[in-house]
Amino acid sequence: VKLEEALSRTVEYSLRPRYAETDQMGVIYYANYLVWFECGRTEWLRSIGKTYAAMEAEGVFLPVLRCEIDYHAPARYDRLLAVRSRITRLTPVRLEFGYEVIDRERGTKLAHGMTRHAFVDASGAIVRCGFEMLDIDAR
Amino acid sequence: VKLEEALSRTVEYSLRPRYAETDQMGVIYYANYLVWFECGRTEWLRSIGKTYAAMEAEGVFLPVLRCEIDYHAPARYDRLLAVRSRITRLTPVRLEFGYEVIDRERGTKLAHGMTRHAFVDASGAIVRCGFEMLDIDAR
Amino acid sequence: VKLEEALSRTVEYSLRPRYAETDQMGVIYYANYLVWFECGRTEWLRSIGKTYAAMEAEGVFLPVLRCEIDYHAPARYDRLLAVRSRITRLTPVRLEFGYEVIDRERGTKLAHGMTRHAFVDASGAIVRCGFEMLDIDAR
Amino acid sequence: VKLEEALSRTVEYSLRPRYAETDQMGVIYYANYLVWFECGRTEWLRSIGKTYAAMEAEGVFLPVLRCEIDYHAPARYDRLLAVRSRITRLTPVRLEFGYEVIDRERGTKLAHGMTRHAFVDASGAIVRCGFEMLDIDAR
Repeated sequence: VKLEEALSRTVEYSLRPRYAETDQMGVIYYANYLVWFECGRTEWLRSIGKTYAAMEAEGVFLPVLRCEIDYHAPARYDRLLAVRSRITRLTPVRLEFGYEVIDRERGTKLAHGMTRHAFVDASGAIVRCGFEMLDIDAR
Repeated sequence: VKLEEALSRTVEYSLRPRYAETDQMGVIYYANYLVWFECGRTEWLRSIGKTYAAMEAEGVFLPVLRCEIDYHAPARYDRLLAVRSRITRLTPVRLEFGYEVIDRERGTKLAHGMTRHAFVDASGAIVRCGFEMLDIDAR
Repeated sequence: VKLEEALSRTVEYSLRPRYAETDQMGVIYYANYLVWFECGRTEWLRSIGKTYAAMEAEGVFLPVLRCEIDYHAPARYDRLLAVRSRITRLTPVRLEFGYEVIDRERGTKLAHGMTRHAFVDASGAIVRCGFEMLDIDAR
Repeated sequence: VKLEEALSRTVEYSLRPRYAETDQMGVIYYANYLVWFECGRTEWLRSIGKTYAAMEAEGVFLPVLRCEIDYHAPARYDRLLAVRSRITRLTPVRLEFGYEVIDRERGTKLAHGMTRHAFVDASGAIVRCGFEMLDIDAR
C-alpha cells in the first residue's frame, strides 16, 4: 500500500452502546469512547489484512502516548453508531489515528478524537517498524 | 496461621462507587460487584501480608472458576460501601471466597456472593500450593 | 408467541473481545461475561421485535436479582465468540436467562451462566407484566 | 472561597489500580485514567464541602466537553497512585480541571490530562451557575 492511500482510507466500525456503558446521566460514560476508538483502529488494521493480535504475537505493541476527545452530543444506549477511523500520521516510530463517532440513524456527529501511538517491543523499547508493520510502501 | 483462623477472618474493603460504575437505571451496574469482589479478596490477602501482585510475580495465578451474586438492594453512586470478604474453603488446589457488600452509612446489605478459584501456574496447570501460598499451617 | 416457543428459542450474539476487556493474565477479565450476557439478552429481546430501550421507555425495568457464571476456558482478545441466550423461566414477575459463551472458530464452550430478573417500574415496585412485555400467549 | 484560592487548591486522591483495569500488555488500560480523573474531581469538590451527588440532586450536571491525556509511563496493578486535581479555569458556564497521576512510592509522574465541563440542567441546557455551585466569591 502506498502511504497516501493508507492515509486516505477511512474504516467504519459499527456498534450499539451497551447498557454497561451508560451512566446515571442517562448517556454513555465519557471514558467508553476510548474503548470504541480502540475497536475502530483494530478494524482499520483488519481492513488492510493486519490484526493487532498478530502484531502483538510478532512482539510489536502500540501503547498510547496521547489522546484527545471532543464531545458534541451524548451517545445513547442501543442506538446504532459508527466509529470512523483513519490514520492521520505515520512515521517509522509513530502512528496517529483520528476518529469520528457518528449516530448512524440520525447522521449526526457525536464526538471526534485522536490517539497517538508508539511502536515498541515487549520491553517497551521503540521499534522503527511503522511502515513495515502496516505494509506501507513509503517511497 | 492455622486454617481455622484463616477461615474465620473477615476483611473489610471500603469504597465509594464511581460515576463510571453507574448505569442509566441510576444505580450501580451489576457487573461491577465482581470488580469489587476482586478488590475485597486482594485486601484479604494483604491482611495476612500477601499481595496478589507478589503471588503472580512468583508464578501463581488465581483464575476464577465460578462466581455467584445475589443482589438485595441497589448500590448508589458515591455512597460509602464496604466489601466484607472471607475464605469459605481452602484446599491445596482450590480457594473460595464469600463476600458481602454493605452500605456503611445505613448498615444494610446490598449483595452477597462467592468466587471459586484454582491455583495455577503461568501455563494454566494446577499447582498444589494453596496452603503454602496463604501461609496456612494445615495440621 | 406461545410460551413453549419462547422457551425453546436460542439467540446468538457475536462479538470480538475488546482489548479493554483483557487483563494482565492475558485473558478476558471475568466480570466482562456479565456485560456480554446483557448484550445477549438484549439481542434475544430484539429477535422477538422488542428492545430493552423501548421497555424502559414504557417504564418497565429488568434489574438483576441473581447471576451465576461457570468458566470453562479463558476467552481471548479479538477471537470471534458468540453468546447463546435463551429464556429458562418466565412468570408474570420473573425472567431468567441462560447463556453459553462459545468460541465460534474452535466450537468450544468457554463459559455458561444465568441471570434472574424482576419486572419493576421506575420506583422499583414489582410489575406483573412478564407475559405482556414479551408478547407471550401464556394459555 | 475566593477564585484565586480555588484555582490554587490541589487535591490528592489515592488509589490502587484494580486487576480489572489491567490489560494484556500488563499495564493499566488507557481509558481508565478518565475514570480516575472523575474520582479526582469528585474529591476536589468534596474538599470544599460539595459533592457531585448533591449537585446532581440539585439539578446541575457537569457533562464533559473535551478531554486530553498525555501518558508518560505505564501505571501498574496494585501500586499506590495518586491523582492530583486542580481547577484550571472557572467561568459561570465552564469548568476545567487539570490532573496529574503520580506513582506515590516512586514519585514519578505517570500521566497528566484535563477535562472541560459545562454546567447544565437535566434537560442539557446551559446554567450560568459556576461560581455559585462552587461557592466562589468571584469579586
